[in-house]
Amino acid sequence: MAENEEVILLDFWASMFGMRVRIGLAEKGISYDHRQEDLLENKSQLLLEMNPIHKKIPVLIHNGKPICESSIILEYIDETWNDKAPLLPSDAYAKARARFWAGFITNKLDQAGRKVYRTKGEEHEKSRQEFMECLKLLEGELGDKPFFGGENFGYLDVSFIPFYSWFQAYETYGNLNIELECPKLIAWAKRCIQNKESVSNIFPDSSKVFAFVQLLRKKLGIDD
Amino acid sequence: MAENEEVILLDFWASMFGMRVRIGLAEKGISYDHRQEDLLENKSQLLLEMNPIHKKIPVLIHNGKPICESSIILEYIDETWNDKAPLLPSDAYAKARARFWAGFITNKLDQAGRKVYRTKGEEHEKSRQEFMECLKLLEGELGDKPFFGGENFGYLDVSFIPFYSWFQAYETYGNLNIELECPKLIAWAKRCIQNKESVSNIFPDSSKVFAFVQLLRKKLGIDD
Repeated sequence: MAENEEVILLDFWASMFGMRVRIGLAEKGISYDHRQEDLLENKSQLLLEMNPIHKKIPVLIHNGKPICESSIILEYIDETWNDKAPLLPSDAYAKARARFWAGFITNKLDQAGRKVYRTKGEEHEKSRQEFMECLKLLEGELGDKPFFGGENFGYLDVSFIPFYSWFQAYETYGNLNIELECPKLIAWAKRCIQNKESVSNIFPDSSKVFAFVQLLRKKLGIDD
Repeated sequence: MAENEEVILLDFWASMFGMRVRIGLAEKGISYDHRQEDLLENKSQLLLEMNPIHKKIPVLIHNGKPICESSIILEYIDETWNDKAPLLPSDAYAKARARFWAGFITNKLDQAGRKVYRTKGEEHEKSRQEFMECLKLLEGELGDKPFFGGENFGYLDVSFIPFYSWFQAYETYGNLNIELECPKLIAWAKRCIQNKESVSNIFPDSSKVFAFVQLLRKKLGIDD
């Protein structure tokens, strides 16, 4: 990394999408100015300026230029700091496949997961089933490989592992036992944390995430 | 393109997402086996096998391997047939920006656009305003450039131009005058059609798309 480079990350500690970027930057050995946003109460002027369309974190600001959307940021990181730890596979088909599953996580898995702790009744019942179906499909994609990227931790691993820090919340509010149904996924998640400092160093404590979800449910009026 | 290559496209003639892939393949000069799906009545066994997760077109099948999701397919096409007509910019930041706006079209613009012809009442009123806001943002991104890609037609142009074939439907059911509010976008769309055979050759007639939307509204029970 050149000395005159300025890298700022607008983030929120419990965000899976923010964690993706933190892991990507750690894989590349990039230091950055890490700024926490107050998403519930008061977004910063910088966030509103840098991501005027979606007003969401994470935003990576590299030498003054904003890059938004975690999947796009990961691709940018991989291309910009390409001297070490390649994230995306080099093969075009493997790359398309990794992008497909990362998109599946960003859309289907995350949407079902949100509903697990944000809804009640029929919608909740449907979402907990959908969430588990998504996890089973991901378990199938992992198969017997040590990482989604094969022998090496890569783009799809980075895209998915942050969700593991929310598993306690999904399990509690969805009445799920993920390890029982997806043992390979849990083994993979533990492998990521044990083997990759880029993950373990940024990973929030599950109980802290759980406390945040408890607070969120109160704010949303789901719990008293 | 090697002689022993097999390229199949599972598609539907009126799909903007299918059109993206058709334009991408035409830009690269790739011939392919073009198979129309009957999405309303009877999806093919091949589609269900090749895209078991989303069961949606377009799917590009290259030498037996399926690639799903139009944005991912365009990236695959650009990387696989990289000897001519580059679609994505080479600069990492310009690439991130093109991906951001293509995602905006795939998600925000398309979702608002669907509601313009699929809903009534308050939801409809909200969607027609949102749709126009999306177009204005895209007009701002285009600015005074001839193409979104600058001097050359590229990835973001390919991602957006198919929607122009639906403008008659959006305008009619949204009671909108797009040219009045976004004259640069309309000039850009005409420029694409006039200058790029990859677009004009695959572009469906607006009136045929409009007739399809009329049929769809009847099927959905919006019109008698």
